[in-house]
Amino acid sequence: MKRRDRNGEIWDFEQEMNSLSSRDGVILGLDGGTTSTVCICMPLMSFSQKLPEPLPILARAVAGCSNHNSVGETAARETLEQVMAEVLTKSNSNRSAVRAVCLAVSGVNHPTDQQRILDWLRDIFPKHVKLFVQNDAVAALASGTMGKLHGCVLIAGTGTISYGFTEDGREARAAGAGPVLGDWGSGYGIAAQALTAVVRAHDGRGPQTALTSSILDILNLSSPDELIGWTYADPSWARIAALVPLVVSCAEAGDQVANQILHDSVKDLAESVKAVVRRLGLCGEDGMDPFPLVMVGGVLEANKRWDIGNEVIKRICESYPGVHPVRPKVEPAVGAALLAWTFLKKETEAKPAT
Amino acid sequence: MKRRDRNGEIWDFEQEMNSLSSRDGVILGLDGGTTSTVCICMPLMSFSQKLPEPLPILARAVAGCSNHNSVGETAARETLEQVMAEVLTKSNSNRSAVRAVCLAVSGVNHPTDQQRILDWLRDIFPKHVKLFVQNDAVAALASGTMGKLHGCVLIAGTGTISYGFTEDGREARAAGAGPVLGDWGSGYGIAAQALTAVVRAHDGRGPQTALTSSILDILNLSSPDELIGWTYADPSWARIAALVPLVVSCAEAGDQVANQILHDSVKDLAESVKAVVRRLGLCGEDGMDPFPLVMVGGVLEANKRWDIGNEVIKRICESYPGVHPVRPKVEPAVGAALLAWTFLKKETEAKPAT
Repeated sequence: MKRRDRNGEIWDFEQEMNSLSSRDGVILGLDGGTTSTVCICMPLMSFSQKLPEPLPILARAVAGCSNHNSVGETAARETLEQVMAEVLTKSNSNRSAVRAVCLAVSGVNHPTDQQRILDWLRDIFPKHVKLFVQNDAVAALASGTMGKLHGCVLIAGTGTISYGFTEDGREARAAGAGPVLGDWGSGYGIAAQALTAVVRAHDGRGPQTALTSSILDILNLSSPDELIGWTYADPSWARIAALVPLVVSCAEAGDQVANQILHDSVKDLAESVKAVVRRLGLCGEDGMDPFPLVMVGGVLEANKRWDIGNEVIKRICESYPGVHPVRPKVEPAVGAALLAWTFLKKETEAKPAT
Repeated sequence: MKRRDRNGEIWDFEQEMNSLSSRDGVILGLDGGTTSTVCICMPLMSFSQKLPEPLPILARAVAGCSNHNSVGETAARETLEQVMAEVLTKSNSNRSAVRAVCLAVSGVNHPTDQQRILDWLRDIFPKHVKLFVQNDAVAALASGTMGKLHGCVLIAGTGTISYGFTEDGREARAAGAGPVLGDWGSGYGIAAQALTAVVRAHDGRGPQTALTSSILDILNLSSPDELIGWTYADPSWARIAALVPLVVSCAEAGDQVANQILHDSVKDLAESVKAVVRRLGLCGEDGMDPFPLVMVGGVLEANKRWDIGNEVIKRICESYPGVHPVRPKVEPAVGAALLAWTFLKKETEAKPAT
């Protein structure tokens, strides 16, 4: 590689490892979210054999936010470039050894987003490297299906989205439009409704609730009036979503208002999965076909007695008994690497036929 | 007045009019909102006679935003000081002639907000001037009751709030906590629900609606997917609330989804008034006592066939038949001036008794 890099420092390490170079090749998987970015380097595994267990992971690197809507294009690109350089150094590898990269980042909603990212990835890697750019939900799906794009994923963390694929390549999504546009089942949605319930109990519009003392205590406020100032002082959605465990505790302790909020959230989350399943016909003509549902995100995990994830599955099961819930055993960045591997495999298999 | 002003220029005009000075005195009323600030100067009217009709208004001045949460303390203070100086110049008067000022500004929710504003008003005016600081909803109430603090006001513009007073000085409010904290009946709330309905129709979670083509047309977008980018490109609540007339048109044309959104809004707005009436007992023990309900804001006006304001009144009437709706004939800044006059009258009347 004789190209001059935009940012020389990032790739300087490669000059000292010329002798190593490509050998069998590696693949990179990136999961870029609003809080952090994870990059995984795996050796290129054989296309003719089953995936090894456990998966051989050469290195893992972590960096900050790489959502271009949040930190801007330049900062996002530098973060992504740095985390890829770091994982290659740790793997004792370099860009010439890379066979494929799958970059799965939040905020990719349009073909134009995809193309812009592809264009600058193209500047970084040699021509032979296969490049793929996806919404981060797709990597989450692949983390549950070990690289296969089939079935549905439900993510419910601070935000929520459902995303599905059929075996013949059709795709559909539901929700994922953020808090203003009705993602009520998300962590932010649950917490905002809890805050609203406190205000309504205080001004006489709603019933009294144990949420009031729980929330005021943890925020160190003395009156619900002060919630207004607290809420608008910082527009971060994650800061509000952090109240979800409190809502779950209140519901477990029997609070009616908290229970209603969680039941509504379950209904909303199940609805968004059902919309995707229905549009793609994942359940077959009779509605009974099996399909995987990958469940990801804090709202769907970590609850004890009041298990939002389980309630969502029960509700989907009433309409589509073929639903097969999957809790991924690997992280989304590994899902992205497996996607890169699958795409590469398909291209390799397609070649002899042409 | 020998005080040195913080900002000399603003009050320079006073040096040239020393000979005029106080005479009978004037009162100032200010209505400070997020979009504009209006200041009214009235002569001090006799406390022993009925208010003259029409009210004698010496001058009116308009300035930009004076909400300290929005533009910061310094800018808000300068705007308020300038608009008061302008109205006094126009009235051919000066600060020594001022007998009372009522400043009604949005964002005043706590005694601490009130005290901070009182402190700097104190720096501007001579000691004898009576100063009053209120939430802007209070001036809106006074604009309907001609200065009397009794009854309830419902404001529904971009935001919404209900505010009530009893004759013996108790007060209560409901809603007014902004869009995150459940002001669903507001203009912002109505429009956000309409946008959500478009997203849900598009991804298969909700029924088809005429809102889709109406909203995409007016925003010049080609697909509901693009609504996500449009929504989060600018956090202004007023920009979203501006879609309300479209929702009303769709409802009038028979669209079920738009009708449901408006019916929900009516329910929410009526609930917040009823909460205030109930807590203050404005309706008396048997629920039949008459009380004024002052109705203010774009959501409650300007609708043709689908009249949100009338529907809200009907709904309140079912619980409290004594409700007496009032559409103010004067603007809130005049309400603020009438409040200043009423406060001054009370203080004057109270003096002989002590």
